[in-house]
Amino acid sequence: MTPHKPLLDDIVAILARTPASLSALLEGLPQALVTATEGYNTWSPYDVMGHLINGERVNWLPRARHILAGETRPFDPFDRTAQFTQSQGKQLSELLKTFELLRRDNLAALAGMNLTEADFNRVGQHPELGEVTLGQLLATWAVHDLDHLGQIARTLAKAHTRAVGPWGQYLSILKDRQQESVPNQAGSSKA
Amino acid sequence: MTPHKPLLDDIVAILARTPASLSALLEGLPQALVTATEGYNTWSPYDVMGHLINGERVNWLPRARHILAGETRPFDPFDRTAQFTQSQGKQLSELLKTFELLRRDNLAALAGMNLTEADFNRVGQHPELGEVTLGQLLATWAVHDLDHLGQIARTLAKAHTRAVGPWGQYLSILKDRQQESVPNQAGSSKA
Repeated sequence: MTPHKPLLDDIVAILARTPASLSALLEGLPQALVTATEGYNTWSPYDVMGHLINGERVNWLPRARHILAGETRPFDPFDRTAQFTQSQGKQLSELLKTFELLRRDNLAALAGMNLTEADFNRVGQHPELGEVTLGQLLATWAVHDLDHLGQIARTLAKAHTRAVGPWGQYLSILKDRQQESVPNQAGSSKA
Repeated sequence: MTPHKPLLDDIVAILARTPASLSALLEGLPQALVTATEGYNTWSPYDVMGHLINGERVNWLPRARHILAGETRPFDPFDRTAQFTQSQGKQLSELLKTFELLRRDNLAALAGMNLTEADFNRVGQHPELGEVTLGQLLATWAVHDLDHLGQIARTLAKAHTRAVGPWGQYLSILKDRQQESVPNQAGSSKA
């Protein structure tokens, strides 16, 4: 019995689908779009893929295991810019494939945990946010995917801001997250 | 020679990829997510798919043909809520498949137009925006896809707003397009 099964099912349903959705969107796209950004200190689709890969490796499941192990020390902080060194020399298609494989393996590992409602309510210490639950961590994993999918859609859209001419006033995505005047954090979201 | 080829290539690259990206994201997703919205008078992923289908049928290519035919009367207005009657009784998987097929046919028709730079600069009359070019229409077609892909990512994310707990403050997508207090236009963008 896993009373939180609907939430876990929703989370897994999203986590299982984003890699293929991203591959379908990005594989073979012209390089100028793959490396486009929304402006100063923002991330390209290429950068985002490296960030998602790093999250699969060092963030989500390691933190889940940390909680399940009953660790009382905070999670290790997550390096949100690791991809700028780790992706070097890699083609986008390699990043897409790597993300798909890591996600598949991580979802298999997650299924193997046979999580119960009691597990969902187990807590860990986030280095900045304080007490968080395993259920919150898993939901964040899925929403983080969607945040970056939305970021990629926005970035590809903004590459055509001038090309759409007067239609720009109808296309709300072109006005989302408009560049702030003061450079601040890169990318879409922390974790 | 098509000097606008880079722009046309970018546009076609996006238009060719969004249907499969949407299918990968949505096919088989739990029904509660398929019908989730961002709040009053906003659209679910199911609603969006019907809207995209209607655009393939009556908006984008008909307007392109209207321009190429040298019509001086304005485009027919586009009914942005037609999907609420047209999608009735249809399963999401049928909508996804229909969108893929219509897009494939429309891109084949677009390729058959053998557009030149002169064609890109040809103008039509939008019923609200006034003079627009064929190039702007085609770029809008692609950005409109991305606007709705972003909308779907946002809607699926917001369905988990409570579930992410304290992480919500890091997940910027949860704060995008926050519901306005006065009900206004549905959905993501006009066209």
